[in-house]
Amino acid sequence: MTHQAAEVRLDDLQRPVEPFLAAVSDELRRMIAADFPLIEEVNGHLLQMKGKLFRPMLVCLANRSAGAEDPRLVRFAAIIELTHLATLVHDDSVDHSTLRRGMPTINALFSHQVSVIMGDYLYSRAIIELVAANDLEPLRILSRVTNEMTVGEMRQLAAYDALRFTEEEYGFLIRAKTASLFSAACELGALRAAPARRAALRAYGDALGMAFQIADDLLDYTEGEAVTGKPSGLDLKDHKVTLPLIATLPRLAPGERREVDALFAEQEPGEARVARVMELVARHGGLTYARQRAEEYAARAEATLEDLPPSPERDALRDAIVYAVERRH
Amino acid sequence: MTHQAAEVRLDDLQRPVEPFLAAVSDELRRMIAADFPLIEEVNGHLLQMKGKLFRPMLVCLANRSAGAEDPRLVRFAAIIELTHLATLVHDDSVDHSTLRRGMPTINALFSHQVSVIMGDYLYSRAIIELVAANDLEPLRILSRVTNEMTVGEMRQLAAYDALRFTEEEYGFLIRAKTASLFSAACELGALRAAPARRAALRAYGDALGMAFQIADDLLDYTEGEAVTGKPSGLDLKDHKVTLPLIATLPRLAPGERREVDALFAEQEPGEARVARVMELVARHGGLTYARQRAEEYAARAEATLEDLPPSPERDALRDAIVYAVERRH
Repeated sequence: MTHQAAEVRLDDLQRPVEPFLAAVSDELRRMIAADFPLIEEVNGHLLQMKGKLFRPMLVCLANRSAGAEDPRLVRFAAIIELTHLATLVHDDSVDHSTLRRGMPTINALFSHQVSVIMGDYLYSRAIIELVAANDLEPLRILSRVTNEMTVGEMRQLAAYDALRFTEEEYGFLIRAKTASLFSAACELGALRAAPARRAALRAYGDALGMAFQIADDLLDYTEGEAVTGKPSGLDLKDHKVTLPLIATLPRLAPGERREVDALFAEQEPGEARVARVMELVARHGGLTYARQRAEEYAARAEATLEDLPPSPERDALRDAIVYAVERRH
Repeated sequence: MTHQAAEVRLDDLQRPVEPFLAAVSDELRRMIAADFPLIEEVNGHLLQMKGKLFRPMLVCLANRSAGAEDPRLVRFAAIIELTHLATLVHDDSVDHSTLRRGMPTINALFSHQVSVIMGDYLYSRAIIELVAANDLEPLRILSRVTNEMTVGEMRQLAAYDALRFTEEEYGFLIRAKTASLFSAACELGALRAAPARRAALRAYGDALGMAFQIADDLLDYTEGEAVTGKPSGLDLKDHKVTLPLIATLPRLAPGERREVDALFAEQEPGEARVARVMELVARHGGLTYARQRAEEYAARAEATLEDLPPSPERDALRDAIVYAVERRH
């Protein structure tokens, strides 16, 4: 892909859609409001850890670059973020994660029980809001995606400890857990566009999501807690196998391989062990390989944009690719 | 309500709808099938613990007694059971239950993680199947119900340890966790019926569900493991306050009250303590009171049937009330 000289900052990317994102925040707040104190308390924390509204931004940019006005857009964008929040809550509970974006997770702050119920609450609110949009098509798209995400989660669970996890399986996994929702966000934005544009944006979202997740998995190897809000090497500590390690494994000498095996045999691997495996991954080109794969998906995402007419929003979608691949958190 | 002399057996109740229920079982199996081994393994256990298909039976009887043919009926009934299964899986995980109908729960057999993801998988499958029915109305009904169920679960969670749980709050809770799905089952059956009949069946399902859940909570006080598949007194052990205890609390002498307080102060109450509180509840009329409330709801359910024309299926719905209140497991 064409590299831009300057770094793309999310703030700059989001500035033109700020009023839209503010409306999405309000809508999201309305959607999750409940007449029950414990739910409201959890909601307060969720809205704080809500994050960057990257997916709602995609809904908006996809819509504008497809040139297809849709009065339901704020609603759709809020529903996408709501679905994302629901999956985060359940994922953190499944993974027993204690930190998310530098803040305590719902399972850490409240309990495992509250997380499970709260995730269900958010999911079912999302469906109610989709039904209220009076159109089966977005329901069709989002229900497929949420189902795909659960199958992805199950794959991840079944793959724990599995140093035989292949790149193909990794691809299935990140498509299910990340790219599918990115793709749905873009498609929902283009629901009223011509079929070719809608298809282009769906494909854009998929490729962007793949690049985004590979970059995310790379960050776990390259950036520390100060930047990402999570300590680095966390995936390794949790015995999660991502692309940098998958690419490294076949390149290891037998002695090195035994060091990796040892890490995966330990219930709670120590800092030194994790640091050593991270060093092996860097030395054997695992990071470089993963970066190349991310760049390939980025190029694919960029190519899909050729099917859209030139516009500032199409440029923004192009910048979003650069951001996804080159961001440091 | 009019008591029938003879006991109503579920087998007798279900005999006329057996072909329908067999079709529902097949449909359910198709709906949850997955191209992933771990999910298929969990599915195998779910289909074994599937139980009595009481809710699908209601869908069928409601439909026939309303005289409104609907080719989607088997699908709707399977979706209702699928939704029920999803909530069971998450409930057991939230409650850390190890037994359900005498069989190990998914969280006990597999893990907490598998339960959370599997519940999400089943929910999202249910939505996909509803979308495929090409009608927003059943989606509207079921999404409201599943959301109400999550709020009910949250109420239950927030009420743990709360000996100040009122009968009104208990009513909210059992409506959310049981009556709402019964009501949805009956309403889905009558979706193509005249509005008055649909409303009658919705009200029938609500009252039946209330009676059913009160009777269920009574069973925990009255029947042992051999009959219900769960040890008796389990709710008390888990510090779950249901109607028999709520009715008993204001009638206790101070010394007796201290015994109840002691049970709720213990992390894991012993058998003797639980047996003693069960005895107090029986002696002070807590069981009788709960039985009366169940009978009142049963009478209300029976009254709603007056708005339907006489038919064998209306008679069966009447028998279902007797079964719900008088069953021993």
